[in-house]
Amino acid sequence: MSTKKVCVILAGCGVFDGAEIYESVFTLLALEKAGAIVTCVAPDVAQMHVINHATGEVAAGETRNVFVESARVARGNITPIADVKGSDFDAIIMPGGFGVAKNLSTFATQGAECSIHPEVERVLKEAYSAKKVLGAICIAPAVVARVFGDNNVKLTIGSDSATAEQISRTGANHIEARVTDVVVDNEHRIVTTPAYMLGQRMSEVKSGIDKLVQNVLELA
Amino acid sequence: MSTKKVCVILAGCGVFDGAEIYESVFTLLALEKAGAIVTCVAPDVAQMHVINHATGEVAAGETRNVFVESARVARGNITPIADVKGSDFDAIIMPGGFGVAKNLSTFATQGAECSIHPEVERVLKEAYSAKKVLGAICIAPAVVARVFGDNNVKLTIGSDSATAEQISRTGANHIEARVTDVVVDNEHRIVTTPAYMLGQRMSEVKSGIDKLVQNVLELA
Repeated sequence: MSTKKVCVILAGCGVFDGAEIYESVFTLLALEKAGAIVTCVAPDVAQMHVINHATGEVAAGETRNVFVESARVARGNITPIADVKGSDFDAIIMPGGFGVAKNLSTFATQGAECSIHPEVERVLKEAYSAKKVLGAICIAPAVVARVFGDNNVKLTIGSDSATAEQISRTGANHIEARVTDVVVDNEHRIVTTPAYMLGQRMSEVKSGIDKLVQNVLELA
Repeated sequence: MSTKKVCVILAGCGVFDGAEIYESVFTLLALEKAGAIVTCVAPDVAQMHVINHATGEVAAGETRNVFVESARVARGNITPIADVKGSDFDAIIMPGGFGVAKNLSTFATQGAECSIHPEVERVLKEAYSAKKVLGAICIAPAVVARVFGDNNVKLTIGSDSATAEQISRTGANHIEARVTDVVVDNEHRIVTTPAYMLGQRMSEVKSGIDKLVQNVLELA
């Protein structure tokens, strides 16, 4: 059993405007099973928008807060990201979901030129500088690429060519992978898996995330 | 592999005012792994209220719809409960969460005298009359007790004495159980497990739900 301390950065609650729920739950489950001490965090910021998940349309006039909605995924056990320091953890893991590209960054609209939420960027950089491990799932590797692309980091979002192209433009090396695979950058201590960028079934997404958590904890 | 058809009734998205997210995800995962064909449904009705899951307080002035929020848990693959017939499935499963006692019924405020959302009651009765299997998780057995208590059904919500007392008042037999246990009423084809009525860890809740899904599919 590991007693590693792991920070999980959430981006809301729901695939289309927040954290992907299944990816988040599988991450937390794998961490619990491995005996890790988990701190869920999220930024106190308005969501880019609210998507009605039944219709796929923007819910006009509705506003939600990323921290408050992320608390749903964490059953209330959540800490403002402003209150934590990346170097205080053995690893940082970011599940995916459109919220990562809409709320934690502007990747959904700006691609390789996106900006990252300043607290998210700070925590990632603190962890990276202190040689901690970063795990990123689904679209979250795009954020890692934007922050650390200059260091030639190696990562995957699966095989979507438009997304891979934006990632390559940050300087990062995009490696094609299947949903049940992980890409491990041993030099920079970064582990990534495609999850719902490619996955159709919950079980295959869970399989990739289980491997990611295992590799993150082994490196940490 | 089973090719059973299973209807999963969702109550929103979030432990304090909707469907318990982890219980819902573990139910869907276990069903997928068993090869079941799953239809997620929810009623088109306003939530009793919205709880800020970071503070536990009611979000004054906010309103959300049970069907629309349940769609988050289902990644958009959701059907209005009004469009389905209980007897068209081999089994009906209800994950828990306060939404079951607040949105699908008034159990949270009225206990044994609660009313059940008419479409939820209809689907449960159609399934029961056609000798289909009912699975209920966490607080959801309270709804089953309210609808079928007169038939002396046997079920569990764990060991919370106040809740068990309300359940007994419906005529149902409450059986104490641990979080990793299921109670199987073979005569009435009802399977229940306590989940977060008792659980502290995701893995123990998952263990009870895995057993519930296995028993439901075996009976179906």
